[in-house]
Amino acid sequence: MTLPKPPVITAFERSPDRGRGLARDMRVRWALEEAGQAYEVRLVSFAAMKEPAHRALHPFGQIPTYEEGGLALFESGAIILHIAERHQGLLPSDANARARAIAWMFAALNTVEPPIIEYSMARLFEQDKPWYADRLPVLESHVHARLGELSSRLGDANWLDGAFSAGDLLMVTVLRRLGSSGLLEKYPDLSAYVARGEARPAYQRAFAAQLAVFNGKPLAG
Amino acid sequence: MTLPKPPVITAFERSPDRGRGLARDMRVRWALEEAGQAYEVRLVSFAAMKEPAHRALHPFGQIPTYEEGGLALFESGAIILHIAERHQGLLPSDANARARAIAWMFAALNTVEPPIIEYSMARLFEQDKPWYADRLPVLESHVHARLGELSSRLGDANWLDGAFSAGDLLMVTVLRRLGSSGLLEKYPDLSAYVARGEARPAYQRAFAAQLAVFNGKPLAG
Repeated sequence: MTLPKPPVITAFERSPDRGRGLARDMRVRWALEEAGQAYEVRLVSFAAMKEPAHRALHPFGQIPTYEEGGLALFESGAIILHIAERHQGLLPSDANARARAIAWMFAALNTVEPPIIEYSMARLFEQDKPWYADRLPVLESHVHARLGELSSRLGDANWLDGAFSAGDLLMVTVLRRLGSSGLLEKYPDLSAYVARGEARPAYQRAFAAQLAVFNGKPLAG
Repeated sequence: MTLPKPPVITAFERSPDRGRGLARDMRVRWALEEAGQAYEVRLVSFAAMKEPAHRALHPFGQIPTYEEGGLALFESGAIILHIAERHQGLLPSDANARARAIAWMFAALNTVEPPIIEYSMARLFEQDKPWYADRLPVLESHVHARLGELSSRLGDANWLDGAFSAGDLLMVTVLRRLGSSGLLEKYPDLSAYVARGEARPAYQRAFAAQLAVFNGKPLAG
């Protein structure tokens, strides 16, 4: 009898955020750790990501991908949902609570992340543009609108809907993209929410594993 | 014995696109039609969407929402996945094919839609800005990158991965947001893909239903 091979995910060969865990492989690592699943990592260069071999796995030439037996997946949200459906710890068992947790997964990726990415990209790539000073406050206001609404919903709860779920996992990773911008700090409840996510042992194992790649000392699988 | 009540979705009381079916209730209507499920529609005004009663259903004060028995959902992607999991016609039965179809759902919403929305919003709200002429080509290039990659993957297939799925349903609605911009027309295969979606009887029933709201003559449920 042979044990099934662990799934293989892809991650950046060189971390653009210098090991701060903002790339999307972090989400998948965290989900696998929450599920108690071993995994292997294949590192890809920015050049290799755009080659046909990688595009066969990921049509948009990005990371992460997920390979397991005959299955190849892309999109961090879909990979995490796949893991969550097959293992304990990421989705509630009650059908209605499960559907609501999945709604928070989509909300993190489709409602909260886009204005955060737009804001982050402007800070990275438009600082030298003549319109930067005029546009940045507009982009900030879009982020604040979402953060305010999220904060109102969270209230004094620990997690968005009952126990920790894949919805919280994605939301925490999305909010972490605000990094050192200072925007998140205006919402102490959201800062505490992110800190609760970061304090989870599974998060810490995942974070250490991606940091080890940046430090050139990948952890044993 | 009483029949179960049909689910209730929300839609804009006044269609901002004048009945062109670009609002996100169209996606949910289409999914319900593909699944052969009756539904009811509650129209909400822009003001009511921001009130506490609606925010209890949708924390971000948007449409659509979905109410069915004791379940309340938001996020069109999550609503469609919920419908797809419970009815035939939107996800393949093979487990791996199903996971890949869900990956296309996330790809439509998290990879293809964001640059399309950013481009559309600039065309709507930044035409009078001094930077518009400089920024628009950049935003167009981001959309073209995604469309080119999507076109390469689609090739000469009818749908993104085997039979029509919820992934195609979402991708078609996302591509339709390009409207009259002319960008989609540079990819005859993608234009034909969207046309195949629009030709489906379920799409046409959903489109007629949302158009009837704009025309002030809601169809009987």
